[in-house]
Parts: sequence; structure tokens; C-alpha cells
Amino acid sequence: MDLSRAAAEACDATDPLAGFRGRFAGAGTDGLLYLDGNSLGRMPAATPAALARAVEEEWGRGLVGSWREWIGQAGRVGDLLATGVLGARPGEVLVCDSTTVDLYKLLVAAADARPGRDVLVCCADDFPTDRYVVAGVAQARGMTVREVPADLDEGLDPAVLAGALDERVAVVVLSAVAYRSGALADVAATTRAAREVGALVVWDLSHAAGAVPVDLAANGVDLAVGCTYKYLNGGPGAPAFLYVRRELQEQLRQPIWGWFGQRDQFAMGRAYDPVPGIERFAVGTPPVLATVAVEVGAGLVAEAGVDRLAAKGRALGGLVVALADAWLAPHGVALASPRDPARRGSHVTLTHPRAWQLTQALVDRGVVPDFRTPDRVRLGLPPLYTRFTDVWDAMDRLREVLATGAHEGYPDVRARVT
Amino acid sequence: MDLSRAAAEACDATDPLAGFRGRFAGAGTDGLLYLDGNSLGRMPAATPAALARAVEEEWGRGLVGSWREWIGQAGRVGDLLATGVLGARPGEVLVCDSTTVDLYKLLVAAADARPGRDVLVCCADDFPTDRYVVAGVAQARGMTVREVPADLDEGLDPAVLAGALDERVAVVVLSAVAYRSGALADVAATTRAAREVGALVVWDLSHAAGAVPVDLAANGVDLAVGCTYKYLNGGPGAPAFLYVRRELQEQLRQPIWGWFGQRDQFAMGRAYDPVPGIERFAVGTPPVLATVAVEVGAGLVAEAGVDRLAAKGRALGGLVVALADAWLAPHGVALASPRDPARRGSHVTLTHPRAWQLTQALVDRGVVPDFRTPDRVRLGLPPLYTRFTDVWDAMDRLREVLATGAHEGYPDVRARVT
Repeated sequence: MDLSRAAAEACDATDPLAGFRGRFAGAGTDGLLYLDGNSLGRMPAATPAALARAVEEEWGRGLVGSWREWIGQAGRVGDLLATGVLGARPGEVLVCDSTTVDLYKLLVAAADARPGRDVLVCCADDFPTDRYVVAGVAQARGMTVREVPADLDEGLDPAVLAGALDERVAVVVLSAVAYRSGALADVAATTRAAREVGALVVWDLSHAAGAVPVDLAANGVDLAVGCTYKYLNGGPGAPAFLYVRRELQEQLRQPIWGWFGQRDQFAMGRAYDPVPGIERFAVGTPPVLATVAVEVGAGLVAEAGVDRLAAKGRALGGLVVALADAWLAPHGVALASPRDPARRGSHVTLTHPRAWQLTQALVDRGVVPDFRTPDRVRLGLPPLYTRFTDVWDAMDRLREVLATGAHEGYPDVRARVT
Repeated sequence: MDLSRAAAEACDATDPLAGFRGRFAGAGTDGLLYLDGNSLGRMPAATPAALARAVEEEWGRGLVGSWREWIGQAGRVGDLLATGVLGARPGEVLVCDSTTVDLYKLLVAAADARPGRDVLVCCADDFPTDRYVVAGVAQARGMTVREVPADLDEGLDPAVLAGALDERVAVVVLSAVAYRSGALADVAATTRAAREVGALVVWDLSHAAGAVPVDLAANGVDLAVGCTYKYLNGGPGAPAFLYVRRELQEQLRQPIWGWFGQRDQFAMGRAYDPVPGIERFAVGTPPVLATVAVEVGAGLVAEAGVDRLAAKGRALGGLVVALADAWLAPHGVALASPRDPARRGSHVTLTHPRAWQLTQALVDRGVVPDFRTPDRVRLGLPPLYTRFTDVWDAMDRLREVLATGAHEGYPDVRARVT
């Protein structure tokens, strides 16, 4: 592999997605090598005008009459995600609430649908909120949690997971892409294995949606949730999405009975009687303004196409791995993600004992990576706006920091915010 | 009472809050008599710029680094609501999730804090989502719901409620202002009565916050939730707020264990261990952009002062009542709200057998009221931007519709949106 900058420039020159970079504010103009789009995606250039229109025209001028449009928004943007991003069918995805709240809703609904079973399964290295939700639901229901160990770098071993599955298991909660290492789970095989023991799986797609194809229909997925502020560029704290396979919708009932799930909502009926479709998983009045930004961001992903995005993500990750091997290994940096690109999402993690100091030194040099406890530098590579030369330049700066020991002057303080 | 338009003009001329009208987009310039601000408040003129700044500067340019500011936003805007609007102390209010989700969280937390009790109490005429949440929690926990009947016009009779309170009751859910009639509950006496039997009350302040003083501290309130898109002008589907009295916070634990309630959040700790303060009631990543609009809207209410707003609201409502008596009663319109202004929030409801047709006829004449099933025209009178002459003109148009029978040509279709 040619590791010259000229080779990276050549990749950029033939990148079929290169044109999308100009559709994000700041990309290529703010001087940042922004490798943290898997924490907070960049802002699409079209978002301010779309939000301004929703705020000033729909709310400011249309006032309450704009509910005629807004009432279908959660499902309409859900359909965009379903068909353009997630490989699902229309009517299977809804934009609503936060990822945590949506996970809670689907987990409780799934547990209710498996009465008599007393075990929830999750991954010991899953993102904290996933583990906490599982622990909270288990405690409330007197269930037991089986935390399946996972390799921090390589992700969950299907054989290890299989050992945790039996007929006591009601629900399994897993991430399709591991937040720390970027390791891909085998969504289809895991869903099948759980189904064989009669359990349901709720997939967290937060680090997968917009980065890799999740193919919910083809993979036979029953339930999923995910975040829209990472690869979907929906903005800080943007509403999340939930997916329920069409055939399951009427069998499930989520636990927070709210008026936006109610049949004939404005009849203000006596008893809760949820609609049959995906809107039965809605709760309160939907976050209209924030969902406008989700629509813009998800639209760009759909337009680019998830397969092309994933292919570029694998190539960008491959460049990180090759440069780390060639330049950084002598300085004590090791790969903390799967080496096989087919087993990775669109981020790559490196490990070094001084990872937090390295992160600070990089920020001061115009590179924005993400620190992940305890000793990891996580590099997000959103294919919509990340160039091969961005990766080359960022790795070059990391090489220089390590070579000069520039990071050694930074405090070893782990307390931080993002 | 002088019912001339000149008298209404005189009230406007001496209105100490008159200056706030110009701080809302469209108020006085869009030709609308907008009497539905208790469904969706008008847009503050400052909101588009505040949102644009958050979107373009904080997200677009600051990117993930802006979390240094955003991380405290939910509590900072909560403090503004606490001290400027709700009569609570700093650290007692958090902006998060939707009203329905927040009600669920506090209801479950409260029920958990009253083990061994098997009854939830709510009002039979409360807003649907309140009743549905109560029903859902009761079903999940095997509890019984006591729905206390209320007069549709006069609200809940404290004596009737008292009959439903005993030592089986874990939690009572009530609205401080009835969504249909605007009837005020006696918050202090009801909270005391519940406490006497050892029960907790969760107040829904959706139609109260920004309309009347709720004085949470003075009234000894333990728990409350509310919406910010009505009198607080936070925008469609804006995040809600929750209030937990300081002394109760550490005793309670909400059921959706999410990473934004976690102590030392970015340590990504193994076990859920919520912070001691109000943030323990946070769940997922907060809705940053939408909360910016809440801050603008709530700031206007705090600046105007709730006592002045309530006084003007009572006067506006008094004008509706007087004009309805004088002009509309002969056409079959009756008051469907308490006649005593001290017993009303800032909306007044009228009843007429053709209420839905009247609503449509008014909309075609530049008046935006709200229809409420089955036969009510609800007139919201947000004191920040509603003039006495707006009320006079709207009532005059309603009088003309009734006098000419213009409404009779409209379809009697109840299906509608808002």
C-alpha cells in the first residue's frame, strides 16, 4: 500500500462521494481535521435554512395550523430513514424521544411479549446507557441480567454470546457497531440465534446508522433503536429513531402510554387504545423543530447511499490502520479495532498509555479525535465529509506529536466533557 | 362593566405588559386574532436568531467542543424556569424529554417510593396523556386507578377528591389548570390532603406554567411536570420540564436509567449510579437545539413576571365572560369555565351545540380559537401578547357569526388536527 500523501490525494480525486463534502458547513474551510463525527456529526449546510423556515414560517406564521403538516412528520422522516438508510420498509421507523427512552420502550415492550422468562442479555462492553437501561428494567421486573463479555478491540464473539442464550432469555440488547472499537456484530446470525431460543433482540444502531448497511429487513431484525446526531448529522441531542418490524407491531405495546400513540387522538378518548401502526410507539408531542434537522441530515445519507458510504468508510479505516502500523507502532500505539475492514464500522480506535494527553495535543493541532476511557483515541471517519488526505494529515500530526513527545506536557486528567 | 370597544382600547393603553407584544413575531402584524396560544404559543421574535446562533456557531463551528456549554443547559434553563416562572429553587427543575415521558418518570419514581400501596388517583377529566400514563403504570404494576370525577366546567371539587384519598393511595396525578375549562386546582390544599394520607402528588403544570403563579415552594409541592410550548412559547414539541423538591431528590430514582443521569458520566462506569441532584432525572442526550428556544420563551415570561401575567389573564378572561353574557348567551352560548376569575387560568371556554362549526367560521374570519370535544370553543388568552381589543374583536366576530348563522354552512366533522 502506497502510504504517500500523493496516494491519499489520488483517492480523494476519484472519490465518488467527494461532492458531499461541500454540503457540510466548515468542512474544508474551518481548518479542522474533524474526526469526531461519530460523536457529533457536522452540520449540513442546508440545515440552518430548513430550520429557519420551520421556525419562522411554520411556527411563526403558520402557528397551530401547521400541525396539519407536523402530525405526519415523525413517520415521514421515519420512512426516509427506513427506506434510505436502514433497509426497512415504510411504516417501520418512527423518529421520537431519545435513544435511551426508545430503548427503554422497546425493551419493556419486548420483555412483556415474553412472559415467564426472567433473563435479559446485554454486552458487558456496550455503551453505558444500553447497560443501564437493561439493569434498570431488570431491577424493576425482578429479572436477571447476563452481561456477556466482549473483547474491547474485537467485539462480541458469537460463540460467547451463544453460551448466554437459553429459554430463560426474554430479550437481548446489543449494538450493531461497538461504540469503542467499531467492531461490527453479526446482526443476522445473532438475531437468528436469539430467535431459536425464543428471545427477541433490540439492536442499538447508534454507531451503525449512516455508516454501514444495517439491512434490517434482509437481516430479519425485529426491533432496533438508534441515534441521529452521529453519522446522520441531525444535530446535538437530535431525536432518536425506533424500528419495529411490521409483523410485530400489533403484538407489542410500549410502556409509556401517551396521547400521540392514541387512536383518534383528538377525540380525547377515555381509555388508551393505541393505533395499529408504528405510531403506537409514539408517546408525547413530537419534537417538530429538531426533527427538521434530522430530515436534512438523513436525506444526505440516503442520497449518498449507505453502500457507497460503507465502502469509503472501510477504505478510510484501512488507511488509518496502515499508517498506524507504519508510523505509530514504534511509538507504542496499537490498533484497538478489528483489523479486517469487513468487521468494522466507520471508526477506528487506537490505544496508547497516554491516550488522553495525545488527544489534547491533537486538538491543539487542529485535529479533533475522541478520547475513550481508559486509553483509547477514537477516530471517526464519516464518509460524507472526510477525505483521505484528512486522515493522512491527522495521522501525520499524531506521528509528529509522538515523535517530539509534545503530548507529554499535557495533564493526565481524565475528567472531561463530550 | 363598560363593554364598548373604547373601554377595551383604554385597557390596552394602560396595560403594563403592552410592550411585550412587539417581541413576538406576527403579533399585531399578521392580522390574526390568535387565541390558541395555550395550544401552541407564538414565536418570540428573538427565537430565530438564538436558534441560528446555536445551530451555526455552536454546532456548525464549535462542533463537539460545544458540549462544554451544552452539558449544563438543561439545568440552567431549568433554573430559569424554577426561579422566574415556577416559584421553585435553583436545582429543582430540569428541561428534558416530553411532558408524557417526564410524567411517567416521576410517577414511577413516586410509586416506587410508596411500596405496599396499590392505588393511583387521577382526575376523570384530566388531559388524555395524563390519564393514559396513569393507566399504563397501574397496569404494569398491578395497581388500581381511582378516577375522580370532575365537573367539566368547574374542575375538581376538593371534597370529592378527599373521598378518594386513603392509605392505599401511592400517588395522585392532577393538573393545576384544567385543559378544557381552565379551572384552577387548589394546589396547596390538595398536596396537603395527599400528604396526610402519605401519598405523593405529581402536578401537571402544562396549562399553568407562565399563565398563573404556581408557587411550588410556597405550596409545598413535591413533584411536577409541564410543557413549554404553550404559555412558555418554546415552539412545537419543545422539551418539557420536571420539578422535584430538593429534599426528595435523593430518595427518588426514575425508571429509565440513562447515561445523562450518571455520576462521572464519561468514566462510562459499570453500574448505574445517578448523581444526587436534579440531573438524576435526566435520561439520554439532551435536546440542545430545542432547549435554546425554551430559554428564549421562558425568559420573556420571567421578565414579565408571573403575577402581572396572571392579573392580566384574569382581566382578559373577565372580558370574555362579560361579552359572552351580554352578546352570546341569547344565541345559546354558555360559559364552560369558572365564573370566578380567581378560579381560572388564562383560558376561557364557551359551550355551544355547534362549537366545531363556530370554530371553522371563526378561522375563516381571522380568529384562531381551539375546539375541544364535544361542544367547546376554547379561547386562550396568553397575556404576553393578547390585547383587550383582540378579545373584543374576536368576540365581536363570534357574535356576528352567530347572528348571521354563518357557521351553519360548515360541516359537522369532528376529525381535526391540533
